[in-house]
Amino acid sequence: PSLESSSQAGPGAGRSLPESEHVVMTSEDSITTIMLNRPAKKNAITIQMYQDIILALKAAGKDNSAITVFTGSGDYYSSGNDLTNFVSFASGDLEKISEESANTLRNVVDTFIDFPKPLVAAVNGPAVGISVTLLGLFDTVYASDRATLHTPFTSLGQTPEGCSSYTFPKIMGPAKAAEMLIFGKKITAREACAQGLVTEVFPDRTFQREVWTRLREYAKNSPNAMRIGKQLLRSSEKEKLHAVNAEECRVGRERWLSEECAAAVQSFLSRKARL
Amino acid sequence: PSLESSSQAGPGAGRSLPESEHVVMTSEDSITTIMLNRPAKKNAITIQMYQDIILALKAAGKDNSAITVFTGSGDYYSSGNDLTNFVSFASGDLEKISEESANTLRNVVDTFIDFPKPLVAAVNGPAVGISVTLLGLFDTVYASDRATLHTPFTSLGQTPEGCSSYTFPKIMGPAKAAEMLIFGKKITAREACAQGLVTEVFPDRTFQREVWTRLREYAKNSPNAMRIGKQLLRSSEKEKLHAVNAEECRVGRERWLSEECAAAVQSFLSRKARL
Amino acid sequence: PSLESSSQAGPGAGRSLPESEHVVMTSEDSITTIMLNRPAKKNAITIQMYQDIILALKAAGKDNSAITVFTGSGDYYSSGNDLTNFVSFASGDLEKISEESANTLRNVVDTFIDFPKPLVAAVNGPAVGISVTLLGLFDTVYASDRATLHTPFTSLGQTPEGCSSYTFPKIMGPAKAAEMLIFGKKITAREACAQGLVTEVFPDRTFQREVWTRLREYAKNSPNAMRIGKQLLRSSEKEKLHAVNAEECRVGRERWLSEECAAAVQSFLSRKARL
Repeated sequence: PSLESSSQAGPGAGRSLPESEHVVMTSEDSITTIMLNRPAKKNAITIQMYQDIILALKAAGKDNSAITVFTGSGDYYSSGNDLTNFVSFASGDLEKISEESANTLRNVVDTFIDFPKPLVAAVNGPAVGISVTLLGLFDTVYASDRATLHTPFTSLGQTPEGCSSYTFPKIMGPAKAAEMLIFGKKITAREACAQGLVTEVFPDRTFQREVWTRLREYAKNSPNAMRIGKQLLRSSEKEKLHAVNAEECRVGRERWLSEECAAAVQSFLSRKARL
Repeated sequence: PSLESSSQAGPGAGRSLPESEHVVMTSEDSITTIMLNRPAKKNAITIQMYQDIILALKAAGKDNSAITVFTGSGDYYSSGNDLTNFVSFASGDLEKISEESANTLRNVVDTFIDFPKPLVAAVNGPAVGISVTLLGLFDTVYASDRATLHTPFTSLGQTPEGCSSYTFPKIMGPAKAAEMLIFGKKITAREACAQGLVTEVFPDRTFQREVWTRLREYAKNSPNAMRIGKQLLRSSEKEKLHAVNAEECRVGRERWLSEECAAAVQSFLSRKARL
Repeated sequence: PSLESSSQAGPGAGRSLPESEHVVMTSEDSITTIMLNRPAKKNAITIQMYQDIILALKAAGKDNSAITVFTGSGDYYSSGNDLTNFVSFASGDLEKISEESANTLRNVVDTFIDFPKPLVAAVNGPAVGISVTLLGLFDTVYASDRATLHTPFTSLGQTPEGCSSYTFPKIMGPAKAAEMLIFGKKITAREACAQGLVTEVFPDRTFQREVWTRLREYAKNSPNAMRIGKQLLRSSEKEKLHAVNAEECRVGRERWLSEECAAAVQSFLSRKARL
């Protein structure tokens, strides 16, 4: 609720949301920006941040901006799901915690699917996991040439989410999508651009200037025509996307409960702790 | 009817259709060509031309040619919908005129969806608006390297048509499609080719020679196998395309009646009149 | 059955299947390989080989390997359907033979659709016809830069199969797909890679080394997560693919019985016999 009341200040306000520590929302020039702001942790997404992202998107969908931009602060766009989210799995009611986690994931992705206005990703640096898979739900994706896209699910005993099991084969073809999602191939922003997942790649040095100059120009188009046009493009697959999201969360939750996954995450976290 | 009787002369006749001023139909080497022929107006499409295109396509679908080619005369492929089509909106029964316009648009697009033979676009120069969006319904698209593709709908308060809200995200991915259709980004033929909307780009100097040499070779394949093969490729989405077309026309008509659109078109026409 | 019992030897066995003359199956490093081994005939696929491929895929789907690789022996990946398969058409109960052929084709393609694990094509050289169309059902496709992809159906009075009438337009867009499938355009591995049909192209000199190094690395990922992930990517279109396969076989069988096709195949075989 705090996010919503803040957003009513509307474009031009340019205020951050003190209530959310790691998700900052600002508005200017008819553009609302949602920024992941946890650079010391490469913008890894905690459970709290998922909730803040949902609130921020709901607020941006209702404010009087024409375009919404999602981006990251610092060197990374986002390193994805904070794997310490899994720590509680080790120490509690597994069934219950995994169900809550799956529900959170499903709600975040549903909010992206239902977002009513043009949604632009400004991928300022490397992206991992769910920050990559969600890109298939954006209307435009600009990336720095320093960005890489990496979805190492199967090395952690996990399966794809964010509707990527549906959007990635559709965008890139199954032969490119599966190498990323099933085999964990890391690709560059330029490779993703050649396959249509990324709209355009800019030199890192001029990334911010070029992206914002362009977006301010786009924001001058008719807001209603852009909003209705976006919904037209998405309308024919919205129902399908919700079904895919539900299925991915169901399958993903089963994976989280598997020994394969527990062992892989445990190994990752202990390697990290030793560093 | 005049178009149909003329087409019965069949391939080799090479005659134009004196009955249609701006849509010329010829047949040679088992290839029927439909050419927009209003070069002084950059082949902008009037209400009458939409009707002539429908008749020409229906005739080409039934004649004994193997392949049908759609192209433009002069420097442009087509500058799209002639915006003076909107002038009558200002001076009449808005409800009625917008309904008639939406019906015409829907019939044209339905005729492209149902076209029974291989349909090739020879994009000889810049293409705008509906001449771009319809490309998603062609079986092969050759373009001159002088061609650009531009769909500035939202700067005119309008929304995409020609089934592009469905075909463009499917062909290019949503991140490339939305920048064109929602933000109005103009792209080059080479960019469109990299994303699969255009089959191949030729140097403008050799465009006509290379395209026609290739098409005459292709026209030697079994006509029945080509016709049935094309229908096989399209069959699984024909119903979907008709539904998308109907929805785009419904939404588009609402936009035409909006003040946003009226103001934008008025501004465009008066800027043009001042030149 | 002999194929299945052999596969139980599992990864590391590295034994070929003496029971199948032209389809060789080996397992090593958690990877099962199915190789077309009829290099003197450019790995053209006989009726017997189709049956062997079905058995090999069923065995590989059940063995304890993590990844299955399909490849060719010698200079070609495969020259496609052995057109001498059509010779029996000339000398028997046409209705019955064409029905049996259509059933065989349908079973082979259904087996690819249902294959439960990551399936990789190592396209070691030129590919023709069904060996090309089936690539749309693979999860990853690596190709030598010496490979070309050619589907000359309509010059033989035939129509596309292997679900390519659905998968190719989806992967490459209709404008690239139809030039291949309807007009018979031969493309290079690099062109196919740019359009997403091929995942990556390697220099022929290093093709085998690079592909196998990469696959051995991928095979270390969680086998369950890879298997379940692949099924997630394919689940939403499995039913559709089976329907497309059935329709392609129905339409294709009608073509085989046409005079156009009979004449074209006869002409091809007699040209070949004169060489």
